[in-house]
Amino acid sequence: MDTGQVITFTGSDKTIVVIVGVVALVALAISFVLRAGVLAAGKGSPRMQEISEAVQEGAAAYLGRQFRTLGIFVVVVFALLFVLPANSTGERIGRSIFFLVGAGFSAAIGYTGMWLATRANVRVAAAANGEGRERAMQIAFRTGGSVGLATTGLGLLGASVVVLVYVAEAPKVLEGFGFGAAMLAMFMRVGGGIFTKAADVGADLVGKVEQGIPEDDPRNAATIADNVGDNVGDCAGMAADLFESYAVTLVASLILGSAAFGTKGLIFPLIVPAIGVLTAIIGVYITRARASESGLATINRSFYISALISAVLCAVAAFVYLPTTFDGLGVAAVQGLPGNPAVIAFVSVIIGIVLAAVILWLTGYYTDTNKKPTQEVAKTSLTGAATVILSGISVGFESAVYTALVIGAAVYGAFLLSGSLFVALFCIALAGCGLLTTVGVIVAMDTFGPISDNAQGVAEMSGEVSEEGAQILTDLDAVGNTTKAITKGIAIATAVLAATALFGSYSNAIGDALASAGGAALDAAAGMSSFISDIVSPNTLVGVLIGAAVVFLFSGLAVNAVSRAAGAVVNEVRRQFRDIPGIMEGTNKPEYGKVVDIVTRDSLRELATPGLLAVFAPIAVGFGLGTGPLAGYLAGAIGTGTLMAVFLANSGGSWDNAKKLVEDGHYGGKGSEAHSATVIGDTVGDPFKDTAGPAINPLIKVMNLVSVLIAPAIVTLTVGDGANDAVRIIISLVAVLVIIAAIVVSKRRASVLTG
Amino acid sequence: MDTGQVITFTGSDKTIVVIVGVVALVALAISFVLRAGVLAAGKGSPRMQEISEAVQEGAAAYLGRQFRTLGIFVVVVFALLFVLPANSTGERIGRSIFFLVGAGFSAAIGYTGMWLATRANVRVAAAANGEGRERAMQIAFRTGGSVGLATTGLGLLGASVVVLVYVAEAPKVLEGFGFGAAMLAMFMRVGGGIFTKAADVGADLVGKVEQGIPEDDPRNAATIADNVGDNVGDCAGMAADLFESYAVTLVASLILGSAAFGTKGLIFPLIVPAIGVLTAIIGVYITRARASESGLATINRSFYISALISAVLCAVAAFVYLPTTFDGLGVAAVQGLPGNPAVIAFVSVIIGIVLAAVILWLTGYYTDTNKKPTQEVAKTSLTGAATVILSGISVGFESAVYTALVIGAAVYGAFLLSGSLFVALFCIALAGCGLLTTVGVIVAMDTFGPISDNAQGVAEMSGEVSEEGAQILTDLDAVGNTTKAITKGIAIATAVLAATALFGSYSNAIGDALASAGGAALDAAAGMSSFISDIVSPNTLVGVLIGAAVVFLFSGLAVNAVSRAAGAVVNEVRRQFRDIPGIMEGTNKPEYGKVVDIVTRDSLRELATPGLLAVFAPIAVGFGLGTGPLAGYLAGAIGTGTLMAVFLANSGGSWDNAKKLVEDGHYGGKGSEAHSATVIGDTVGDPFKDTAGPAINPLIKVMNLVSVLIAPAIVTLTVGDGANDAVRIIISLVAVLVIIAAIVVSKRRASVLTG
Repeated sequence: MDTGQVITFTGSDKTIVVIVGVVALVALAISFVLRAGVLAAGKGSPRMQEISEAVQEGAAAYLGRQFRTLGIFVVVVFALLFVLPANSTGERIGRSIFFLVGAGFSAAIGYTGMWLATRANVRVAAAANGEGRERAMQIAFRTGGSVGLATTGLGLLGASVVVLVYVAEAPKVLEGFGFGAAMLAMFMRVGGGIFTKAADVGADLVGKVEQGIPEDDPRNAATIADNVGDNVGDCAGMAADLFESYAVTLVASLILGSAAFGTKGLIFPLIVPAIGVLTAIIGVYITRARASESGLATINRSFYISALISAVLCAVAAFVYLPTTFDGLGVAAVQGLPGNPAVIAFVSVIIGIVLAAVILWLTGYYTDTNKKPTQEVAKTSLTGAATVILSGISVGFESAVYTALVIGAAVYGAFLLSGSLFVALFCIALAGCGLLTTVGVIVAMDTFGPISDNAQGVAEMSGEVSEEGAQILTDLDAVGNTTKAITKGIAIATAVLAATALFGSYSNAIGDALASAGGAALDAAAGMSSFISDIVSPNTLVGVLIGAAVVFLFSGLAVNAVSRAAGAVVNEVRRQFRDIPGIMEGTNKPEYGKVVDIVTRDSLRELATPGLLAVFAPIAVGFGLGTGPLAGYLAGAIGTGTLMAVFLANSGGSWDNAKKLVEDGHYGGKGSEAHSATVIGDTVGDPFKDTAGPAINPLIKVMNLVSVLIAPAIVTLTVGDGANDAVRIIISLVAVLVIIAAIVVSKRRASVLTG
Repeated sequence: MDTGQVITFTGSDKTIVVIVGVVALVALAISFVLRAGVLAAGKGSPRMQEISEAVQEGAAAYLGRQFRTLGIFVVVVFALLFVLPANSTGERIGRSIFFLVGAGFSAAIGYTGMWLATRANVRVAAAANGEGRERAMQIAFRTGGSVGLATTGLGLLGASVVVLVYVAEAPKVLEGFGFGAAMLAMFMRVGGGIFTKAADVGADLVGKVEQGIPEDDPRNAATIADNVGDNVGDCAGMAADLFESYAVTLVASLILGSAAFGTKGLIFPLIVPAIGVLTAIIGVYITRARASESGLATINRSFYISALISAVLCAVAAFVYLPTTFDGLGVAAVQGLPGNPAVIAFVSVIIGIVLAAVILWLTGYYTDTNKKPTQEVAKTSLTGAATVILSGISVGFESAVYTALVIGAAVYGAFLLSGSLFVALFCIALAGCGLLTTVGVIVAMDTFGPISDNAQGVAEMSGEVSEEGAQILTDLDAVGNTTKAITKGIAIATAVLAATALFGSYSNAIGDALASAGGAALDAAAGMSSFISDIVSPNTLVGVLIGAAVVFLFSGLAVNAVSRAAGAVVNEVRRQFRDIPGIMEGTNKPEYGKVVDIVTRDSLRELATPGLLAVFAPIAVGFGLGTGPLAGYLAGAIGTGTLMAVFLANSGGSWDNAKKLVEDGHYGGKGSEAHSATVIGDTVGDPFKDTAGPAINPLIKVMNLVSVLIAPAIVTLTVGDGANDAVRIIISLVAVLVIIAAIVVSKRRASVLTG
């Protein structure tokens, strides 16, 4: 893998990197302009503003406490990273510093996403009430555009600064940057996911089921918490997650690009997302709702137009910047390879763009209210909740299979482009970059969902939005359900592409470490089975089994955490109905803040267990069983994780929209037996689609990056002078104990629902 | 892998194999004696006999039609097997013939299991009515014992005959035997699983939900079909499945044993299950219910006593028969290895026995009505069906994780026993043999479930069993739910052990084929990436992803098939209520036979798609992408399949028993809101635990054996003189088209529930 290629920048290389940095800054500037535009829109009535401010306060308070909690964790990991082997002191310091930068950017994006969304919701509600659908949709989509451009802008800025400053050492420093981004995003996804669904499920169980009052009714003490949840989960968590997808995919391409294509391989992966930023700007500005079409059609059109522009510009970039023969790259390891690097790079990028488009279509097909699968799920409500659950699970399984096969085809397609393994890995990473060119528009699409949902909440709670205005918001919300499922599909695709490519980096790290441990040590055959990652070896296969198991455990922990935290909400809302007279009559207001506090406390407590599992499980497997089984572990987690993530996201999306279909008057409409059946489906789907499912994407990336970072240390402790089985086993046991302790502690907190 | 070891039998070797064959015949004889004992028991009242005979007829008719349908398939595969590469004509003929023998034995065991169970149910009901609990339990358990001994007897007989006749060629012939057993068992598991759950769910939806009449009410036209289903699914399908587990694990040990331990390695794996047969006989005869203890405690005691006896006898066998140094084996490839083969073999067997005991305990813990997890699932019924579903899914995920980790630990433990890869593989296979020593008792335990269930049905429908007798049968049924879940856990463990071991056989087949394709051909580097099964290579990883996807697709297809077939049942029962006057008043009998016919037709039609997927998916991947990705594919399927199988089995078992807890009077008892919530949980769990989940075990084995069988052909078409990419790609495309066509056809048959 290591080509021994010396990376040096010519003046024109530097100029390009600087231009990329400038493009990143332009994206941030336009993000700011869009934001100012959103904030300038009308804020609605005083009652609407009051509700919105309560949501803003709750969300800000939650994120503030979350960052303080995670701060401790970040400091610990910062210290551990400093201890891990590195090739030079500069690399060591850079890796740790940029770990902090990655984590900080991830947090900043999450905070910004939440901040703007909580301000946009009331403006969208006001626009739907006074100015009509086009204006409401425009505000929602521009808010998303602002967050999307901030996401891509910060990701690109971070990467270009690292490349400019560290040049040849950039790959190692970028590992730190990507790891920081992924780790923080994972915690935000898990914590936010628990918050949003605990509040949602808890509010529904007492409000809709026990008291028979509608969703977002101001008499329900959990309504503000429910709306806060939409923002900290679906906005903050999602924005951080997509930022991390962006950062890690970029990091994988830069690491592999320099190995395969030399200096040009370090710069081309920066050009592609820079083009993506430009087209995202176009995409956000051209989005205009037409009166005759659905909201999804409008969003799809922007996506396809921006994807097409990206493809054309990437072709130009590839043919202008890259040579037409491998010899022209001046990299010893690829000298004489057949094929045209410009064509190979261009086709790789196109594979990524096409993959994004196919996932967009496939997810829309399985979850949209206008398509057969979700309509059939809605129809099974006639035979009760059991058939709704079974048909939704079937839809989830089926869509997961096709999504996984499409992602697999993209990886295999990119792999086939070249006869050389590490050029192939770079192609896979470039396909990831192609996928990235669409992230700006994707974030804009996704942010759309929670903003519409929240605008509906503000409208309902204030009671001051006209019926026509409310209908506009309901329609926008249904579009949001599908766009949210699409984003999750795209995010998991980036996880597979980045993880597959990072395997190259993993092998490289092991190879380097083995080489520096000395040739003689390699003869110690007894220890060597730890390094064999051939899948037919039983220890690798055990790794695959453990990797698959961790995905199930993580999903189970996330679902359990939601039901525990929801139980606490149920008890508090019941208590308020009992202790505070006049809530039901509307003469007294419930204490919204208390519920927000309870969910905040519980979510922060609950995010620890799945988070610790993600960081410590690869440490336990790697130090305990060796780098071969660890490779198997990663493969098992990627395989099972991909299927599970899409299954959870799409079955949940389909149940939610099946409920919307029944609420629109099909099969008996609101209040019918069929409606109750779909409400049960939606409640089961809530933690699937908004807690467990979306967290699997950052989970996979965190586990991959932890593995890349610890690989040299495992090798050092296994062969050569530094070999020390006792230390190796102790590290593994400590990791196992941390995981067991975390699980035991979370089990102790028996669910209020169950005990 | 290939040690070039010449296998020759001395006189004493032959004597041992003959003794093993005699033990197998003794098992069959005792099976016959037990059967005669069961048949001699009182048959109950004429009304009870009439019901039982209707069930017998329906079950026999279904299996008869199933065998005719599968006959075509068996003939086609027989022909294909004949065409695949083989080392000699004798091997080729033997492999095909013993494929037929394996399939025939599998079918015979299934048929016998069904035949005896349908006769035992009425006798258990009669005993519960007149002679009390001990006698009822004894008849049920002895019926299981008869089936269990037939299963082990036929498996052992087949293997010992092959070893005796084919000696050195035995491994290849055994591949055919195992494949025949696994293929037929898979179809019987899928077909029977669809039948039993379509009838069950259909009967419940119209009977319990629409008409409000109890389970097994004679006015419901689907009751006989429901009882037929218990026999063709839970008895015939299960017996065939465990026979196949037995056969395939034995085959894997014999193949790997001859490579690692020479002649002694071919004979020792026959001695271990022969010991298992002896202890199973003891286990069946010592099972006596004590008045003071639960049924599960009685069964567990027999299990632990037989396991202990097996362990002691296996120790004796290992130390008497095997040498204490590797040099003593006289096998060139293992000369000079450190360690004591007798100790290594003994410890491997113990690992398998302990694994069985741990899975028994773990599954009991998660699904039994007396334990916390299922009690908590029952408690969540207070907050409605959604929380029942979520808590059951959590229990399923959690138990799957721990079961997978325990199985992984067993594989890793056996792997660590030796420094040499192929000794390690043999150790894993021997652990499988250890697990096998418990199969006789396991089958006895499992058969117990459907017999109790059916006896309850006969009692309910005849209306002639006393209240006390009915309570005895209800208690036995709850024990049956747990024993069924345990069997599925053990079965999936055999799948992992056998599959891991068979990987050795797979590598061996590739290595042999590469060698015979000629050294020069190996330089054709372009094609070589197809043979690399290193997990860090992207094409292997794509294989892992596809393997995981196939498990999800297979599970989704099975669940869908049940809901489609259940829809047809619902329509027919509704029609009978409408068209035949007097059913509801009991003055007119419904047409039970019509429903049996409909379910028979639909199940046979529905089993084709998942069955074809299992056989053709590895062909598509192997010929299309190469042997490396095919290895990844198998690993992905094993990893995801293990988790999914246990998840589906245990969440289903837990929901069923949570319902029983509520029906026993907890949380409101029968007819309460909580009861409806647990009925929804149980209905979701039905296709999970009895259709999709248990079919994953034979699925994994079929895919593994297909891969082992096609590996040489893939190599031949990829390198050397026989290389022909066009043919290779065409075979792959044909396989893909078969799968697509099967899925499209099954999609066309839109569910009556949904379309």
